[in-house]
Amino acid sequence: MSKNKIKKVVIVGGTHGNEFTGAYLAKHWLKNPNLVKRDGFKTDVVFANEKAFKEVRRYIDKDLNRSCSQEIIKSANSSLHEEKLAKELNQKIGPKDDREKNADFVIDLHTTTANMGMSLVVSNNSELTWLAASYLSSQFPTLKIYRWQGDEEGAYVNSLGSDGFAIEIGAIPQGVLRADIYKQSEELVYKLLDFLSKLDEVSRTITLYDHVKLVDFPRDEEGEITAMVHQNRQDSDFELIHKSEPMFITFNGETIVYEDDEPLYGVFINEAAYYEKGFAMCLARKIEYSF
Amino acid sequence: MSKNKIKKVVIVGGTHGNEFTGAYLAKHWLKNPNLVKRDGFKTDVVFANEKAFKEVRRYIDKDLNRSCSQEIIKSANSSLHEEKLAKELNQKIGPKDDREKNADFVIDLHTTTANMGMSLVVSNNSELTWLAASYLSSQFPTLKIYRWQGDEEGAYVNSLGSDGFAIEIGAIPQGVLRADIYKQSEELVYKLLDFLSKLDEVSRTITLYDHVKLVDFPRDEEGEITAMVHQNRQDSDFELIHKSEPMFITFNGETIVYEDDEPLYGVFINEAAYYEKGFAMCLARKIEYSF
Repeated sequence: MSKNKIKKVVIVGGTHGNEFTGAYLAKHWLKNPNLVKRDGFKTDVVFANEKAFKEVRRYIDKDLNRSCSQEIIKSANSSLHEEKLAKELNQKIGPKDDREKNADFVIDLHTTTANMGMSLVVSNNSELTWLAASYLSSQFPTLKIYRWQGDEEGAYVNSLGSDGFAIEIGAIPQGVLRADIYKQSEELVYKLLDFLSKLDEVSRTITLYDHVKLVDFPRDEEGEITAMVHQNRQDSDFELIHKSEPMFITFNGETIVYEDDEPLYGVFINEAAYYEKGFAMCLARKIEYSF
Repeated sequence: MSKNKIKKVVIVGGTHGNEFTGAYLAKHWLKNPNLVKRDGFKTDVVFANEKAFKEVRRYIDKDLNRSCSQEIIKSANSSLHEEKLAKELNQKIGPKDDREKNADFVIDLHTTTANMGMSLVVSNNSELTWLAASYLSSQFPTLKIYRWQGDEEGAYVNSLGSDGFAIEIGAIPQGVLRADIYKQSEELVYKLLDFLSKLDEVSRTITLYDHVKLVDFPRDEEGEITAMVHQNRQDSDFELIHKSEPMFITFNGETIVYEDDEPLYGVFINEAAYYEKGFAMCLARKIEYSF
């Protein structure tokens, strides 16, 4: 929620070639993109390590999920397979060192031989990440959240994007698919996408008419009003009033104009209850307000 | 969203006795409370000024929507009708000067003779108020937001609660009902209640397992492991480990126990991929994390 708009969510499967659940989910979604499509943002699915998957290994040269550090991504030459992959992922998800990233939210799919059940491994402190984690906790009562702070610098795949986390589900052996764990991962991702889509309805920038001042009716020495709201001003709430435009018309038919240099918007123009309060309208400035 | 939980929403109608839309909506909801009932919080409907309504007047002695100041609420004696009402409202909605209020969100229903269309008059800066305003803007494209900063101290009815705003719809004469404006007000309130109910799904406090340290397998001088995860520890992820409880069992059958004083939770216990990384499990502290 720290940003105004989620534009892209990236789901990564096959980060570890022998963690089949995420790998097969990614393949499934690449074939059926509508399953992960939601209103308000684009969803990309990335199969991260095809080569390791084919060899049913976690990685070829080194752990991809420990290779997304700034140092590796910035290095001029990388002969290691996963370092090359990390650089490619950085193009798709990052850039890691840029505030403007391709992916606003990264979901990285993992499994573990440990008996962790459904769990999230969170290693960033952004508000949206925690909101999403909290929402999923409310939807999946058994879901556990593990905050990883073991690294000096995040080198996880999900660290390339602005927000996100890894999903870890187990216990399941490497190189094995289980329908129950596949389904759990799938449901978790769908709920998360639904949440991100709903969240996106609320912009953090709002157009508002900010009160500047009150304008009283023209009055005589006894305080009696000497003019009415001008017929061209009547009913024009939330419309801009420029210098020299009519504001009031006297009972003699003389027009009284707006004299300020700054154009402002009229609000509560000719509200009955405000005659006694001593104003004919409010003037407001239109602003974009971010909160 | 600045709080963890919305417990009560209060809808106030009839704040001004001659603004019939809110008055009749309040009467309707008092008879049919299910219409404003939502999951996650209690909704109260208050008819604010019966006497002024009967006399088809904005107020009897003074404007109720300018009477909810600290000074009036704290005053020992109030002979004025609306000052007494303000004190009663403060009991139902406030207390105004207390962080713990009865109402977390106040919706105060008004109409105006000005041609304001559907609008909100916002006079507080809380995040939840602005989120709600922003959400309603997205749902009602013609909705206008007017931020009122004309008072030194808020004396509006909605200032008694933590969050909220006034709904102003017009143009409509005083003492008149119009079906179109009645319906607009009704829909605005329903959408707002739906939003507050959805929002409430996300708690801002989350239970998490916070990483403390890694525990390696016992190893010999060559770095070979000399023990396995103990059978009582296996599969016990997210369970508490107390001092002297088994951690490992050597190939000779000797138990190796946990020696720290602080009980911690095991995570990633016996994850295959971590043998080479040099740890048998992570230890974590269970905390309540607020964000």
